[in-house]
Amino acid sequence: MRRRKVKGADEKLLSYKDYVIKENIEEMKGKWSVHFENNNPIHVEFGTGRGKFITTLAKQNPNINYIAMEIKEEVLVKAVEKADENNLDNILFVWGNVNNILDYFDEKEIDRVYVNFCDPWPKTRWAKRRLTHTNFLNKYDKILNADGEIHFKTDNEKLFEFTLNEIASDGWALKNISLNLAESDYNENVTTEYEDKFMSQGMKIYRCEAKK
Amino acid sequence: MRRRKVKGADEKLLSYKDYVIKENIEEMKGKWSVHFENNNPIHVEFGTGRGKFITTLAKQNPNINYIAMEIKEEVLVKAVEKADENNLDNILFVWGNVNNILDYFDEKEIDRVYVNFCDPWPKTRWAKRRLTHTNFLNKYDKILNADGEIHFKTDNEKLFEFTLNEIASDGWALKNISLNLAESDYNENVTTEYEDKFMSQGMKIYRCEAKK
Repeated sequence: MRRRKVKGADEKLLSYKDYVIKENIEEMKGKWSVHFENNNPIHVEFGTGRGKFITTLAKQNPNINYIAMEIKEEVLVKAVEKADENNLDNILFVWGNVNNILDYFDEKEIDRVYVNFCDPWPKTRWAKRRLTHTNFLNKYDKILNADGEIHFKTDNEKLFEFTLNEIASDGWALKNISLNLAESDYNENVTTEYEDKFMSQGMKIYRCEAKK
Repeated sequence: MRRRKVKGADEKLLSYKDYVIKENIEEMKGKWSVHFENNNPIHVEFGTGRGKFITTLAKQNPNINYIAMEIKEEVLVKAVEKADENNLDNILFVWGNVNNILDYFDEKEIDRVYVNFCDPWPKTRWAKRRLTHTNFLNKYDKILNADGEIHFKTDNEKLFEFTLNEIASDGWALKNISLNLAESDYNENVTTEYEDKFMSQGMKIYRCEAKK
């Protein structure tokens, strides 16, 4: 998707200072629970987009803390607005880069990683940029605790195939694999904005979970 | 598929007495290598059909022994004819039932199991009949040696989804997963008669390998 710069998005985003962490994210490392003021499990979404998915989960699960990371400020601001409208106090938004998560999160600090509809980077030479490349999986492995899981969704068949193979070859156990979420038995699905659009067009959604 | 009885298929099949084992299959248990007169690895296909797949492999790999099992005599006879035309001496055909494989094969006697385009048994109450149901996977696990693998192909999306989940939840390691074999990097594919037909119609073929 082309990146469209919205005038004033930066300033708007920073005005939600209780919700948004932009600078010195590294200082949060190992201290996210302190910031949430409780020891509830922490679930992180990398590439939150407009935030329908993560804010819906945060509303449904007040006893789980959510961290929503997104690099595009003009879409992240939409996500923050959703949390603000709902007065959610169990979610934080990080204006950060997924490449740097080992600087942001301590070992075993996280209970679940969500990756939804990330960029498929279709050319082979771009494989390392895919958020399910083994290099990223190794980072998720480090920040996840022993029972931690990755939950992944995509509409892209080739990316899903790549992801299943990366996950399996890295020794994660796969579960709840869906090749067509609309026809699957999995009924706890919370959709993203993209997913609603894709599903309304009859496109297939692929999903899986993985645990080390 | 409806079972069409071909007159004389039984007799024709039994006339290939060097190739076909029909009666007292249990007596072969633990002695397949003796019958092949060498200690080469043994690869078995359950549900061989007309035999294009397994006879092609047998031609390509003279140092591997192949066992082709099929319960429908009128299609198995076509497979046997292919082996006979090519004077293959590294293949045997078993007119047997996959339910009984623990009676036919000893523990760790087999190096690879092939299951290609088996009946998807689409209704939930038929799940136990699918050749990748955990009950069958456990049987394959028993007869496979430590490095043994299952190689599976299907054109049925739901069966493939079911299979991936059964394999993963039983603790097998998945590898070489293809969601669309025609577009995959896997270039050692040997096709079955069904597969040629499906692929010519543009249908997707799913494939995976599994190792305990």
